[in-house]
Amino acid sequence: MNKHAVFYNIGNLLKVEAGLLALPLAISVFDGDGNFLAFLIPITLLAALGFLLTRLGKKDAVIYAREGFAIVGFSWLLISLFGALPFVISGEIKNFIDAFFEATSGFSTTGSTILKDVEALSRSMLFWRSFTQWIGGMGILVFVLAFMPTTEARSIFIMKAESPGPKVGKIVSKVKITARILYAIYIALTALLIILLSFKMPFFDSVNHALATAGTGGFSIKNAGIAYYDSAYVETVLTVFMFLFGVNFTVFYLLLIGKASQALKSEELRWYVAIVVSAVFLIAASVNSFYASFGRSLRYSAFQAVSVITTTGFATTDFVLWPAFAQTVLVLLMLVGASAGSTGGGLKVSRVVIYFKMILKEIRYSIHPRQVSTVMFEKKPLSDSTQKGVANHIVAYLFILAIGTLVISLDGFSFATNFTATLSSLSNVGPGLGAVGPSGNYAVFSPISKLALSFIMMAGRLEIFPMLILFSPRIWKYR
Amino acid sequence: MNKHAVFYNIGNLLKVEAGLLALPLAISVFDGDGNFLAFLIPITLLAALGFLLTRLGKKDAVIYAREGFAIVGFSWLLISLFGALPFVISGEIKNFIDAFFEATSGFSTTGSTILKDVEALSRSMLFWRSFTQWIGGMGILVFVLAFMPTTEARSIFIMKAESPGPKVGKIVSKVKITARILYAIYIALTALLIILLSFKMPFFDSVNHALATAGTGGFSIKNAGIAYYDSAYVETVLTVFMFLFGVNFTVFYLLLIGKASQALKSEELRWYVAIVVSAVFLIAASVNSFYASFGRSLRYSAFQAVSVITTTGFATTDFVLWPAFAQTVLVLLMLVGASAGSTGGGLKVSRVVIYFKMILKEIRYSIHPRQVSTVMFEKKPLSDSTQKGVANHIVAYLFILAIGTLVISLDGFSFATNFTATLSSLSNVGPGLGAVGPSGNYAVFSPISKLALSFIMMAGRLEIFPMLILFSPRIWKYR
Repeated sequence: MNKHAVFYNIGNLLKVEAGLLALPLAISVFDGDGNFLAFLIPITLLAALGFLLTRLGKKDAVIYAREGFAIVGFSWLLISLFGALPFVISGEIKNFIDAFFEATSGFSTTGSTILKDVEALSRSMLFWRSFTQWIGGMGILVFVLAFMPTTEARSIFIMKAESPGPKVGKIVSKVKITARILYAIYIALTALLIILLSFKMPFFDSVNHALATAGTGGFSIKNAGIAYYDSAYVETVLTVFMFLFGVNFTVFYLLLIGKASQALKSEELRWYVAIVVSAVFLIAASVNSFYASFGRSLRYSAFQAVSVITTTGFATTDFVLWPAFAQTVLVLLMLVGASAGSTGGGLKVSRVVIYFKMILKEIRYSIHPRQVSTVMFEKKPLSDSTQKGVANHIVAYLFILAIGTLVISLDGFSFATNFTATLSSLSNVGPGLGAVGPSGNYAVFSPISKLALSFIMMAGRLEIFPMLILFSPRIWKYR
Repeated sequence: MNKHAVFYNIGNLLKVEAGLLALPLAISVFDGDGNFLAFLIPITLLAALGFLLTRLGKKDAVIYAREGFAIVGFSWLLISLFGALPFVISGEIKNFIDAFFEATSGFSTTGSTILKDVEALSRSMLFWRSFTQWIGGMGILVFVLAFMPTTEARSIFIMKAESPGPKVGKIVSKVKITARILYAIYIALTALLIILLSFKMPFFDSVNHALATAGTGGFSIKNAGIAYYDSAYVETVLTVFMFLFGVNFTVFYLLLIGKASQALKSEELRWYVAIVVSAVFLIAASVNSFYASFGRSLRYSAFQAVSVITTTGFATTDFVLWPAFAQTVLVLLMLVGASAGSTGGGLKVSRVVIYFKMILKEIRYSIHPRQVSTVMFEKKPLSDSTQKGVANHIVAYLFILAIGTLVISLDGFSFATNFTATLSSLSNVGPGLGAVGPSGNYAVFSPISKLALSFIMMAGRLEIFPMLILFSPRIWKYR
């Protein structure tokens, strides 16, 4: 392990977090809400530790995969720990474990909350809470990548650990420029969403909900969530933007550089659209008797389905009251998740398509063992090592899902609650079924469950292995 | 597709089923219960169709994998269809779909029932119902293999499709002899169990429960199941024998030929013991407050845990009333299943161990990409193709689990019911949670769900791919 490189990079990230905390600090000062110190103390601590670590580390140190994973895993943990401080110091979330859960939920873009009355929070805290999702959304490290001096080799390894999905795409050859372009798209879409939402809600509300949507987080600043605004306009705008933030950003990149036909040929995009459309109609048919018209049924189905598959987790209705079939479709969407290279979580559409093709190939192989057949994706044959990686991913996903459900079950809730709370955390969705449905709350869980779910949210966001690796003694052996 | 070979082998299997039906026919004649025709009609039909198919087919035809899979898939389907006839003709199960579900549940050694009052059945029907599990237990084709003239090449392909688990083991070199030895072990263990049980229950009861145990099926001839006998002796004997029938039969074979040390070095055996012991203690700790003493708690935990991991499905208590933690452990045991090469179902202990090792290897690889590391099992490195096969298996398992849960959810039961009914059917356990717990019943489901679950039970028993392949148009293309 090259500790110098790890220190240097983590130190830089902590400094960035200190800088980002200046925004809620400014709101606090403007509002005069007395939360000044609640932001200033963590800023000071982060800056001090940041400078110390960059001092101990070295800038030009060579980075390999293990260093990349260690940087991602540790910085995520530290950023969540420090990100919890404002809530605790201000006393707006008294218990540290609760505050840590909330911060982790934000940075991992999950959007589960332990807050029973979110409207009791000050505006500065609400903004910080929403902002964490936006920061997490594009990946803290991709974010930093775009603004920090860096070498080509290092970036690729950090991208590998950070990027949500089996592969970053062809466009990573010039990581730094690409990261900046992706980031510009992210900012532009967020700004557009803020403007569109502000027509039907106060500006502060539109900023917060836009940040939550862009990061596919799903925190709301209203106890009733998006249902508070009771506006078909707001729901439609959010449905469209949640959908967009679940698209592989490579598609936007290609559109931007004028390669529209290539963008629309994306196999993952087509599957993503197909899955969303089928899910919306399946749910609409299932819940039809709940609503006055099929149009209304479609409106609610579309919002809930898009919210869940993109792992945003907003809800405009309590889908725990829906028929079992509609709920099961939502659980499957939680598992699938958004596109690779988007801000969403879950297994990712591309992986699920690859799994499906692997089964078809196994069937072909069983029938004609001597016929050569390959798994194709995006018109390219997948290498054995990619297939192995994709297979290992689902196996690790299931192990965490199984062990998580087991740990959570110690609290004695129903199987549906335990299973979907774990799945929803691992896929960074937010709500689940049972006690953790849209009207429910993660406050019901014990501190052990909250810590377990925090770990699971981080593991889900970081594609599992960077988190598992932190527990491996092997990572500390070499240098 | 070599249709001659498929016809010939299926024809032979149907003739064997006709022969096996002579046993319940004899009981019917002895009891004078009027079910004479209910057995004679299917016997006649099976014999006629069997002779016709063997006539159309050819004995010495060469068999490849696709023919092997087609034989296994179709024969299982036909045998279940014909096996349902006695129930329908006698009128003891009036609805054909119900009868088909019950027969499939038996032959797949699942042991789920749609019967609300099993004690209302005649002895001849009860015996046929129990006998189906015993026949299914060792695999109809391995069974036939031991008594039918056959060529080496053909047997290997049939074994590949039939044998429960990722690999049959080293002992398949002389398939026919091995099959006979395995079968002798199976018969001897069953006979011993009949004798041991008969000390505390009527002989007819002991035969039925021994057949259900040997096949890891779990049908009981009492409405209250094993709890009816309320005997610590019966429970202990069954716990031990359920455990034994969940062991890889290679272990018994090695013990038989005097290689005890080699048998006990089996890695799968050690994991199997470790998982069972941990599960028993975890459950016992969880349910301790339910029982007067820890000893009693252990007794119930051991029975339920062993019954579920071996996918037998007997129950001496309604574990749906147990704490969520104990129930979750049971759900995980359902997923794991018994050892490869046993009569049990599920993913199999060896696969689960391989999955775990694949994750560890991926972690090692992430840390040291240039270090060569292999996945070892039973002290041998696993080939890439074995690893791929194991990975494809869990992916296919999950797809069926997901789609099954979705279809079942149309009936509107709880998520726990739908998910565990599907998992329990796929792993050939029997009971699940919620409405399909030990006190519940599969009669609650709609005909569509019953047919879906029947397919899932068969797919689980046949290691999924032979069933999926029947739906592939490709299998019909070549000859």
